[in-house]
Amino acid sequence: MRINSDRLREHLTQLGMIGCTPSGGVSRASFSAADRQAREYVTELMKKAGCQVYTDPVGNLIGRVEGSRGGPAIVMGSHIDTVPDGGQFDGALGVMAAIEVMQTLRDNNVSLDHPVEVIAFADEEGSYLTGTFGSRAMLGSISADDWNKVVSEDGTTLEQLLVSAGLAPRNLEVRDPSTVKCYLELHVEQGGVLDAKGYSIGVVEGIVGISRYLFTFKGKANHAGTTPMDMRQDALLAACQIILAVPELVKQEGDMVGTVGMLEVKPGAANVVPGEVEFVVELRALEKKKVERVLQILRQKAEGLMDYTFEVRMDKDPAWLTPWVKDIIEQVATERGYSNLRIASGAGHDAMSFAYKNIPTGMIFVPSKDGISHAPDEWTDWEDCGKGAQVLLDTLLKVDEN
Amino acid sequence: MRINSDRLREHLTQLGMIGCTPSGGVSRASFSAADRQAREYVTELMKKAGCQVYTDPVGNLIGRVEGSRGGPAIVMGSHIDTVPDGGQFDGALGVMAAIEVMQTLRDNNVSLDHPVEVIAFADEEGSYLTGTFGSRAMLGSISADDWNKVVSEDGTTLEQLLVSAGLAPRNLEVRDPSTVKCYLELHVEQGGVLDAKGYSIGVVEGIVGISRYLFTFKGKANHAGTTPMDMRQDALLAACQIILAVPELVKQEGDMVGTVGMLEVKPGAANVVPGEVEFVVELRALEKKKVERVLQILRQKAEGLMDYTFEVRMDKDPAWLTPWVKDIIEQVATERGYSNLRIASGAGHDAMSFAYKNIPTGMIFVPSKDGISHAPDEWTDWEDCGKGAQVLLDTLLKVDEN
Repeated sequence: MRINSDRLREHLTQLGMIGCTPSGGVSRASFSAADRQAREYVTELMKKAGCQVYTDPVGNLIGRVEGSRGGPAIVMGSHIDTVPDGGQFDGALGVMAAIEVMQTLRDNNVSLDHPVEVIAFADEEGSYLTGTFGSRAMLGSISADDWNKVVSEDGTTLEQLLVSAGLAPRNLEVRDPSTVKCYLELHVEQGGVLDAKGYSIGVVEGIVGISRYLFTFKGKANHAGTTPMDMRQDALLAACQIILAVPELVKQEGDMVGTVGMLEVKPGAANVVPGEVEFVVELRALEKKKVERVLQILRQKAEGLMDYTFEVRMDKDPAWLTPWVKDIIEQVATERGYSNLRIASGAGHDAMSFAYKNIPTGMIFVPSKDGISHAPDEWTDWEDCGKGAQVLLDTLLKVDEN
Repeated sequence: MRINSDRLREHLTQLGMIGCTPSGGVSRASFSAADRQAREYVTELMKKAGCQVYTDPVGNLIGRVEGSRGGPAIVMGSHIDTVPDGGQFDGALGVMAAIEVMQTLRDNNVSLDHPVEVIAFADEEGSYLTGTFGSRAMLGSISADDWNKVVSEDGTTLEQLLVSAGLAPRNLEVRDPSTVKCYLELHVEQGGVLDAKGYSIGVVEGIVGISRYLFTFKGKANHAGTTPMDMRQDALLAACQIILAVPELVKQEGDMVGTVGMLEVKPGAANVVPGEVEFVVELRALEKKKVERVLQILRQKAEGLMDYTFEVRMDKDPAWLTPWVKDIIEQVATERGYSNLRIASGAGHDAMSFAYKNIPTGMIFVPSKDGISHAPDEWTDWEDCGKGAQVLLDTLLKVDEN
């Protein structure tokens, strides 16, 4: 059974025109007018593919087809919201491919043993919370504080925002993990590994944990003209040594990334020796121990350099995906003759919310041209989109037999 | 003949109370209410010391005593304006010590061959232009553009500001350098060399030149999670290598300082690889060749690292002071038994304006406790203040004989 890659292309292109920007990107924040229009389009396609469609109390758009044997559902999900001026593939591909899979089953008069759901999760991009809102809410990972968080300048809370979007978040019933047999998500890589190495399919090993540490070096602000070099405590020089150590240590560990993307020099004048420098070290790895080892060495180095303070800003555990699901994805891709590679996901996805609840979870990546994402230039070749959708269908069929 | 160091202390303390702040500092911007009050106090002291007092068309406050032989004047100057929440010694010491010298001459019924002037220069601290305004204006180093520069948020130009302060800048007659036999300035070091090394008097070799260069490294902003380390062009890592090279190269040259005090990371998010980093390298030396050599190596290094742009932001020549004046200062200090050291001035002073015009110029430094200046904690021991004033008097007498 083959998906129809021309139809998938047509649907993705149509969706990409909703919320499109002058620069050729897409701006479609969750609960925006463009998002509402996109939901209508997705609803229509879901219905055409034979789904019963409904929106849950937090805004997740769900299309469901019952199975002949019943039991827990196989869920195929992703999102249709975007970052401001983002691309047309991130999220959208996963939802449109899942719908294409349902349409292909219908066209072939195939019914599965298990119920199947296609879900477009609300606010994956974190326009209001820190991302993957809809899937976390569905599975009960949103705290009471989160609901009361102010999400716009006029003081609107998250709950008020949802209510004003016609939703009833208080009616949310957290989904029991046992109602999901398996979660599958097709997504663009958003990095450049598959593209650079020439693979069509990535079999996602897991989603890296994210740790962010704020370092503040406390030197002494001094006149840059009158303070001799050997009488200085220049906080920026200390910071630079740590910043340069990050890629070195990260490369030594391998299979992880480390970045300093944020740095502030105080007081920040050309004629004043930096008295204080703040910067954030972000470390991402599938193996938490790697992060811990790098952090330990960075802190030792910092202690040897200057007075400093240290603060954990984020500490998100990695989410390993499920071995038997990964094996199926790898097997079906290989059977189709699609070159494939085991790869870590450096970005967060709705799949994490399922993996954290020990629901069997698998992710399929397709290449992002030059690794570009969250930008108008985001691109995935149509052929690769089709291969990804085909792997999603083949995986669904195998999981259904399982 | 000895100056009266108790009287000097009393006068400096009184002056320091005008514009004093809750934190124990002094806020006395030129042409502010506090500055007007300080001018009245200084005028009174100048008159008591026998000076004819007048304010020139740009606000320089001048007290003059004629000499028995006439001819060009010996000028002792500094300033009484301060940075916001600055200290009570920076500038004020030079003016009050010059007045103390005049008072001592009067008390001892000594009249000199040459006319002597005490000048409190307007806006040395650069509240409106880039510093040393009054001395530059007096000597014709202010451009037409400078006069029209907007100096406050309501659109007031420098000229309008002076007019509203009751001055008539259009009436300014630029002073002919030949009317000044010698310019002398006592000032606190504002650095920590004399204090750390235990010297009472600094014989200033010259005032360093200041060069500022804006480097902009252009890398590639990328997702910090999905971009492997070997596929990045991280502008901050390139910048750090240059920043760390600055102190190394500067120390190799010796007798110079180099600072990166300003740095901006774009886009500046914890989860984005820095795409662009701007920073300013400031180099100060008495010998311009040192600056040129360091800059050349920095640019070579930068070229090897990443695409970058380069812009000269400031290029102020050093001002060497006059050998015979320095010799006199050194000689009189040594005769008094005051430990003394040849030292470069890392900060700009009104003395530069005179040295640039080839007027014989000398500067005397006294120690700044812990090198602190432009801050409430600025401190110079009263004993050192007295020694500085004594050296100023002794130098004046020798120059007058010369």
